[in-house]
This record gives sequence, C-alpha cells and structure tokens, in this order.
Amino acid sequence: MSKTSEPAPKRYWEDFTPGQVIEHGPRRVTREEIVAFGKEFDPQPFHISEDAARSTMLGELCASGWHSCSILMRMSADSFVLNSSSMGAPGIDEVQWLKPIRPGDDLTLRATVLSKRPSNSRPDMGFVHVQLELFNARRERVMLLKAPLMFGRRTPGETAA
Amino acid sequence: MSKTSEPAPKRYWEDFTPGQVIEHGPRRVTREEIVAFGKEFDPQPFHISEDAARSTMLGELCASGWHSCSILMRMSADSFVLNSSSMGAPGIDEVQWLKPIRPGDDLTLRATVLSKRPSNSRPDMGFVHVQLELFNARRERVMLLKAPLMFGRRTPGETAA
Repeated sequence: MSKTSEPAPKRYWEDFTPGQVIEHGPRRVTREEIVAFGKEFDPQPFHISEDAARSTMLGELCASGWHSCSILMRMSADSFVLNSSSMGAPGIDEVQWLKPIRPGDDLTLRATVLSKRPSNSRPDMGFVHVQLELFNARRERVMLLKAPLMFGRRTPGETAA
Repeated sequence: MSKTSEPAPKRYWEDFTPGQVIEHGPRRVTREEIVAFGKEFDPQPFHISEDAARSTMLGELCASGWHSCSILMRMSADSFVLNSSSMGAPGIDEVQWLKPIRPGDDLTLRATVLSKRPSNSRPDMGFVHVQLELFNARRERVMLLKAPLMFGRRTPGETAA
C-alpha cells in the first residue's frame, strides 16, 4: 500500500506532467485468485492448475494476461485513478506480457506520464498518455501497458498547461 | 453457445487462414457480474453502481474495459482457443472500447484471422494475428482488439502453409 500521512489532493488533468512517475505497491498475487480468475475468464491449462500447467510451454501455473491487466488496473485505481477526475479510457495502445506472474509474487506498479493534450472536442477534458509497468520482487519487469487516459480539467477550456 | 452436432477437430497453427472468420455467442452480461468485477478490479463509480454512475460522463452503469476484455477472452476460449494448440499470447497490439457494455447486453464474438507466420525461433510454434470484435444485440460494435496469438504446429519445422 502507498504510505501517506495525510490525504493526497485530488488529481485533475492539469496535475499530470510528462516525465512524472507514480509508484504503488507492493500487492501480493495469490494462487487462489490466479485460479479463480482463470476458471472464470481464461481456462487454459496454465491458468487453472499446477498439474495441467506442467505439460505446457510455461510448465507452471501463472496468471492470465487479462488477470495481470486487471490487477494493474486495480493498483492504478488505488494509486492515482480513484482520487482523480478520471473519465476512463477509450482504449489501450499496447500491452506486453513480459514474464509470467506466479503465485506469491509481490507486484509493484510504476506509472509514467508520457505526454498530455487537451481534448479537441471537450473543453472540460484532456488526455494523459501513460506507461504502466508491473515489477515483481526481483525487480523483473513482468508487464508493460501504454494507454491514453481521460481526465476532467480543473479549469475547462484553457489551453494545455 | 456455438451450435455443434459433433466435436470440432482441434485447431493447430496450420488450420488458421487469413480472412477466416469464427463467430460465437451470444453471451449475456449481467448487472451482478459487472458490479462484482468493478468492485474487485476497477472500482470507478461508473463500474460499481447505478447511483454512483449517474453523476459521471457516461451517466450509467457499464462494464469495466478490463471486464470486457476478460469476457472477450472467455468467449474466445469457448469458441476456438481451448480446443486448439494455443500457447498464449505475448501481448496485445491494440484495444478499442467503442461503446458501453451495459447490464443485460447479449454479446457476440467475431474473430477474424488477419495474418499468420511461423515463429523464427521455435519450429514447433507459429503466430496468428487476429482481430477480435464484440457486438451487442443491436449489432453495434462495442469492442475491438488486435493481438498475435501463439499456436503449436501440427507439423513442426515446416515453412508457412
């Protein structure tokens, strides 16, 4: 969990700056949640049981890539999205699943602001392009994602800060 | 659910051809699963309750984009991934969340093979680039995803079919 001694101020579009880095975690991933997610959404053998995984390319149980994305989302929410003027995202530019996420892994999130721009159509909104990365306890990068996030502006209608 | 009168043969890399279309569904999305997923992974107001959603840009409860991806994964699994030589995917090229997925929506999946190539490093594997789309009952396209999928080859080491 993030260590905070007082409530952080709510973030608006204006408060994101290119190069800014926000870190969060660690969060432990359990065997139980890997298997539960796998059984519901991605029941390939390497996501639902150690036995079934053994005869596959990976050879071991690991989290579904979509589970990894969902964990990354929750860590982003807890880190900076919920306490902000977030208006969601229109999509994702890129996802790379770089290494398996295994039971017991302690994940940390690093969010880096790549760029920002005001919306052309909505004066009350702007885009913040972010790179979101997950690392395990060995500081191996296990996942990378790039996406444009939409945030409300504190002062609608002004040009980019 | 897919209508099949006899078990479909297991698909290997060789069995995918550019232009091929595989359809699956419909699958109904319930309010309960939208809220459950939202509370666990993406607790923004528009994913966890109608009341909280009312004051947001969307104005209504809708599925998290990551829930949409996870539903798309499960439909793909049930349609063609589980009964195949699937070896997972290294990542995702692009995701577009085009329209909200709402409680009660009946989603259908359309998978289109864009291209394929043998792996350069693994003679027992090949890549199949797919476009996966979800449509609601009004035939509105609600989501688009492009990704390289990895499949085992029936006949390792031969050049592309």
